[in-house]
Amino acid sequence: MYTYDYLFNFTKNVFLKMGCSKHDSEVIAEVFMAAEMRNQPSHGMIRIKDYYELWKAGRINVNPDIRIVHESPSTAVVDGDNAVGMLAARKSMEIAIGKAEKAGTGWVAARNSNHFGIAGYYAMMALDHDMIGICLTNANPLVAPTFSISRMMGTNPIAVAIPADKQPPFVADFATTPIARGKLAVAEKKGEKVALGFVQDKEGNPTDDPTILKRGGSMLTLGGDRLHGSHKGYCLSAVVDIFSAVFSGANFGPFVPPSVAYLPLLEKKVGEGTGHFFGAMRIDAFQPADHFKAKMDEWISTFRTAKPGEGQERVLIPGDPEREAEKRNRKEGIKLLPAIKDDLISIAKVLNIDFKEA
Amino acid sequence: MYTYDYLFNFTKNVFLKMGCSKHDSEVIAEVFMAAEMRNQPSHGMIRIKDYYELWKAGRINVNPDIRIVHESPSTAVVDGDNAVGMLAARKSMEIAIGKAEKAGTGWVAARNSNHFGIAGYYAMMALDHDMIGICLTNANPLVAPTFSISRMMGTNPIAVAIPADKQPPFVADFATTPIARGKLAVAEKKGEKVALGFVQDKEGNPTDDPTILKRGGSMLTLGGDRLHGSHKGYCLSAVVDIFSAVFSGANFGPFVPPSVAYLPLLEKKVGEGTGHFFGAMRIDAFQPADHFKAKMDEWISTFRTAKPGEGQERVLIPGDPEREAEKRNRKEGIKLLPAIKDDLISIAKVLNIDFKEA
Repeated sequence: MYTYDYLFNFTKNVFLKMGCSKHDSEVIAEVFMAAEMRNQPSHGMIRIKDYYELWKAGRINVNPDIRIVHESPSTAVVDGDNAVGMLAARKSMEIAIGKAEKAGTGWVAARNSNHFGIAGYYAMMALDHDMIGICLTNANPLVAPTFSISRMMGTNPIAVAIPADKQPPFVADFATTPIARGKLAVAEKKGEKVALGFVQDKEGNPTDDPTILKRGGSMLTLGGDRLHGSHKGYCLSAVVDIFSAVFSGANFGPFVPPSVAYLPLLEKKVGEGTGHFFGAMRIDAFQPADHFKAKMDEWISTFRTAKPGEGQERVLIPGDPEREAEKRNRKEGIKLLPAIKDDLISIAKVLNIDFKEA
Repeated sequence: MYTYDYLFNFTKNVFLKMGCSKHDSEVIAEVFMAAEMRNQPSHGMIRIKDYYELWKAGRINVNPDIRIVHESPSTAVVDGDNAVGMLAARKSMEIAIGKAEKAGTGWVAARNSNHFGIAGYYAMMALDHDMIGICLTNANPLVAPTFSISRMMGTNPIAVAIPADKQPPFVADFATTPIARGKLAVAEKKGEKVALGFVQDKEGNPTDDPTILKRGGSMLTLGGDRLHGSHKGYCLSAVVDIFSAVFSGANFGPFVPPSVAYLPLLEKKVGEGTGHFFGAMRIDAFQPADHFKAKMDEWISTFRTAKPGEGQERVLIPGDPEREAEKRNRKEGIKLLPAIKDDLISIAKVLNIDFKEA
């Protein structure tokens, strides 16, 4: 088991060695750690290797000039200058919050960015400002629209964080597919099948094979099939893509560049890098903040009284599982898979920094 | 078959007789007709009776003073004064568009409103202004959160309309449940069962019985079950509820008042009436409008090239089916079910207006 501080400092040192500033390395480490703490390890330490390889391949800019290229009182477009995604994302969300302070709401589309970790991190930045935070991003194309067998979209997540008063905040953060892609990788490593309704083979037949993406298969959108509303998942994923990429001038849909160095850059570009979208809404632009937060307490406690079905323990509020995981992980520490430790050990060796087995 | 004009004029006359102004009656008729034309008849002529009964019961205000009660440069809260929902909704969306003209984006939460027809109508109002339109609303509680058997939310729809140039606009308009509630009513009338994954009985068991809502059953959220991502549908529905009701001061979740007069008003109120939420985003607050719309053309034509699966004819762009229905219905006319015609005939008799059998 590793402590938060140990992994935070290790991650910070990796990015310092790559040439990132102290401030930037700390921001990046904080977002990586947020994924580990909130039980989204598919976006945590496992991704350090991807960034390391992108850096080695000269495909990431460690001294970026992240800047506003267009704006209105409540909006901005940010060029991420091919930075580590966490940096473009965090600055964009800060700009959204600043816009909201003056105009009531702030909306920022970012282009020329890269994989940014967990969307929930940026949405939650709004909470301390008595604002609702929103974050969307597009991602590597692996998902087929309804009726199709072509990989046209990423797992394009949506995160929304809403402050309450005495209750913990409402925090939703989810891919617009039935499961996150990382769950397929876990099933593959364990040699297990997955349930039907997650993926299809290259002809569009249902399959329980978690390795099917390697043989032309694709992920399905939330809803699974047309009968059960997959066209709604397709709509959601499409909206995330358009807000992230068409508003910003990033690559959309099938043209989103791969976030790993072992895949070549795509031949066709329709924009710059990966795109994200951020929103901040000042709650007192609608209701006095105290009143709104008291109402959210009431909303949350009302939903907590929903009667669980047979065999179910309780009804959750979005954010409950992640908050409980964070508490547990802070106390008990974080366990890394042997394969991830091996990656980190070899990176540590090349960069001449310490990484202990634990 | 009825022509557009015939049903529009009939609807307008019904609301004129109830005491609505000429302008208001025309707005209401236009939204009713949009539902009929876009093949969402569950939100069309069938609902005239509901409004007629609410009016007879004195539960609707035909001379409303719909007004802004709070605002910031990019936001407003509107009190609908218990108007017919279409009026509060249309005025709110007009305010959102006006805010967007000045601040780049406009966001309006409305309270003290009623059932407003189809969400897509209001989202599409933004298109002619070179804006993206968004519309959300909460609704009668019939849907259970993941793990629960309690009806806590409505089918809470999301509509997003995005302009293109030579391509028709992208228009998504969908309930955050696998199917709309109207489909259960249709199956019931035909004496058919429904697929599993739409509803559960009062103990939370899966069922194919479309009448189960009458015996304590509930609808499931998009995703169907936890394994297939129902918690994501729950998150979406919850966000729609919070934006529509907590931002505005309307009733949230299980306290949303019934939109039909045969159900009594709820004893507990946590706000005023039904809530909606509207957004308008000026596309040139992000990108030059011509550039954005050309990119949307490219997005749409790219997605049209997605390869259909076996047995599938083509991949659709959100808005395609409704636009094609509208074209067909304009040409061929609109067919009403006998039961709906009977309702309209009896309303016509009482109000002393014409309604022909056709």
